[in-house]
Amino acid sequence: MDMHDLTRNLAVSSDSKIVMLVADGLGGLPLRPGGKTELETARTENLDAAAKRGVCGGSIPVKPGISPGSGPGHLGLFGYDPLKYQIGRGALEATGVGLELTSQDVAVRCNFCTLDSDGNITDRRAGRIPSEESTPLAVKLREVKIPNVEVIVEPVKEHRFVVLFRGDGLGGNVADTDPQATGVPPLDPVADDAASEKTAEVARQFIDQAQKLLAGETKANGLTMRGFSAKPELPTYEEVYRLRAAAIAVYPMYKGLAQLVGMDIVGQATTLDEQVATLRENWDRYDFFFLHFKYTDSTGEDGNFDAKVAQIEAFDAIVPQVLALNPTVMIVTGDHSTPAFLASHSWHPVPTLLVSDCCRTDGCQTFGEAECLRGGLGQFEAKYLMPLALANAGRLGKFGA
Amino acid sequence: MDMHDLTRNLAVSSDSKIVMLVADGLGGLPLRPGGKTELETARTENLDAAAKRGVCGGSIPVKPGISPGSGPGHLGLFGYDPLKYQIGRGALEATGVGLELTSQDVAVRCNFCTLDSDGNITDRRAGRIPSEESTPLAVKLREVKIPNVEVIVEPVKEHRFVVLFRGDGLGGNVADTDPQATGVPPLDPVADDAASEKTAEVARQFIDQAQKLLAGETKANGLTMRGFSAKPELPTYEEVYRLRAAAIAVYPMYKGLAQLVGMDIVGQATTLDEQVATLRENWDRYDFFFLHFKYTDSTGEDGNFDAKVAQIEAFDAIVPQVLALNPTVMIVTGDHSTPAFLASHSWHPVPTLLVSDCCRTDGCQTFGEAECLRGGLGQFEAKYLMPLALANAGRLGKFGA
Repeated sequence: MDMHDLTRNLAVSSDSKIVMLVADGLGGLPLRPGGKTELETARTENLDAAAKRGVCGGSIPVKPGISPGSGPGHLGLFGYDPLKYQIGRGALEATGVGLELTSQDVAVRCNFCTLDSDGNITDRRAGRIPSEESTPLAVKLREVKIPNVEVIVEPVKEHRFVVLFRGDGLGGNVADTDPQATGVPPLDPVADDAASEKTAEVARQFIDQAQKLLAGETKANGLTMRGFSAKPELPTYEEVYRLRAAAIAVYPMYKGLAQLVGMDIVGQATTLDEQVATLRENWDRYDFFFLHFKYTDSTGEDGNFDAKVAQIEAFDAIVPQVLALNPTVMIVTGDHSTPAFLASHSWHPVPTLLVSDCCRTDGCQTFGEAECLRGGLGQFEAKYLMPLALANAGRLGKFGA
Repeated sequence: MDMHDLTRNLAVSSDSKIVMLVADGLGGLPLRPGGKTELETARTENLDAAAKRGVCGGSIPVKPGISPGSGPGHLGLFGYDPLKYQIGRGALEATGVGLELTSQDVAVRCNFCTLDSDGNITDRRAGRIPSEESTPLAVKLREVKIPNVEVIVEPVKEHRFVVLFRGDGLGGNVADTDPQATGVPPLDPVADDAASEKTAEVARQFIDQAQKLLAGETKANGLTMRGFSAKPELPTYEEVYRLRAAAIAVYPMYKGLAQLVGMDIVGQATTLDEQVATLRENWDRYDFFFLHFKYTDSTGEDGNFDAKVAQIEAFDAIVPQVLALNPTVMIVTGDHSTPAFLASHSWHPVPTLLVSDCCRTDGCQTFGEAECLRGGLGQFEAKYLMPLALANAGRLGKFGA
């Protein structure tokens, strides 16, 4: 029995509203032991006021010690056990470039590579060819035609592009063709199960035609395929929580992740202010809002402590506008930590706050990593945040008599 | 999917070093409510300094309320779910007397008992016969000869001894022969599965011959057999963590437990100082070091609060020498609590600290039970300590994209 078995059975209707503000990579580290983290350094008077009214804690994205990518990080926040629901790399890459997967699709991450005259790989990443040069090559591959299968090719970045095969009877289990070595040819696509035989054959045809289209190209004349994956099947917010849910995100990856759990993508905001405006405009149409802010993560990934501090302050500035809508529950959290000190995603618990009229305030005075250690939510796995949100919103009935 | 599925997939190579210092039975209780525990009473300036630099918390050995033996206590610290991996009592007893199990072995715990002229048990423990008197009897049983099976007999303490049957086709599932009552004869060894039929027959032959060898002995003229067990099959540190691991322990039980997870036993230290010297001498050859200190447990078991305090202070004294080696991660913990107040193992969370450059310091000022409650590791199941150690050592890649 997992949490969704509980929420499915206990969810009740309500006109309450839940807002989940996700500052990507929010958690951090001090630059030196005993110092302050990015969040503790930032002036965040609005978040601090919310922490005083609310209850705080530390969200463990997956399990102690595990640093998640964006996929498992968000699934956890959405209440989906990230160890149970794993999203294939191809599907995530396709989602990241804005392709909406259907149940007829198999998505594949591809790399441009260079081949010698014998067909052996000389560079598995084609010298990390710049995007300006790889994009026209990816576009050229749109000329591939396969009977009864729609082929969608989308450039990603540098040597990477994504291919979607759309048609009937395409299983998602095909082995990678990247031999992880140079001096040998790419592997043949091999199906891991009977249901994926057709996919392997389609991939073979794609590779044959692509090779011809790329023949004579100097920067990249070959390709490898990895992470074949069908559309992940996730139960929807409507089904597991009885929530009409909206996602307000700028980047395709996060829209895609929200779509996988059945959220509607609303608005076309490109700035935080536009995101808040979108929230306001859609207030009456939904029960749950996921608002995603990217730049706390990207500045952390860049190792830029001060820039992350500034982004946290920009994020803090929208809080009064969100609270002005009078949500029943407002949550502020991140999908993982991205300490500038590490310049990467990390495993550290993410500062999290939840404000509602019945949240049992815990005496936290500011919003930050150290203060959250004293918080009433304790340290909890991210997947429990949604049940807590539902409970605080009066949307979960009693379990058992 | 368990933590080892994650660590297996995510482990990356590194030249980082992890040291785990285990003070057996470290956690304690005050002698009266509101007082200080053994650890809080001890002067531990080195551990306190490490707590300031590091992150603290409370390790729950198995699950809340469960007091573990040494086997599950250490398996948890080693990152092996102690509910999933259970070590048979015979195997643990054999390990405890320094016998190294092979996959051909079945180990059995045996008790000397006394039998009347009808062969009925009169004392199940032979009056807790002193070790001086039971040892020669156990040695006498080495005369037992069974075709194609090597028989190894090792005295333990008082009425206890251990027998190892080594040969082909010996399954480990045979029922105990101790009837748990007097006035009745020992039970016949009965196999619980077909693969253990040969073991049961070998045990029958052992009992027959042993009975004859013991005939006429006044202190103990019979035996019962319990806890038949084959060698537990545990994945190795190399396999699940990509760690070359060394164990530096004085007592056979802990060497044996470390060996079961693939650690090398290094050195022949008998004192803490020699253990530290062994650590230093082997520094370049391993990635991970388990250093076991016994006397915090044995003084606790004796109910001797002051002696346990003194042992904790002796343990504190080695910390600077360990830190001088500049480990990437240093952990200090125990396999369980052994409060002198209870004179036994207990379920209480064990004070734990982890020091690394990226551990997110938590403001703890001293190392002790009360202070650990405020620590950044929170209270966690012991099995999560190894993933945290790996993460802090830069040895775990990102989960998912």
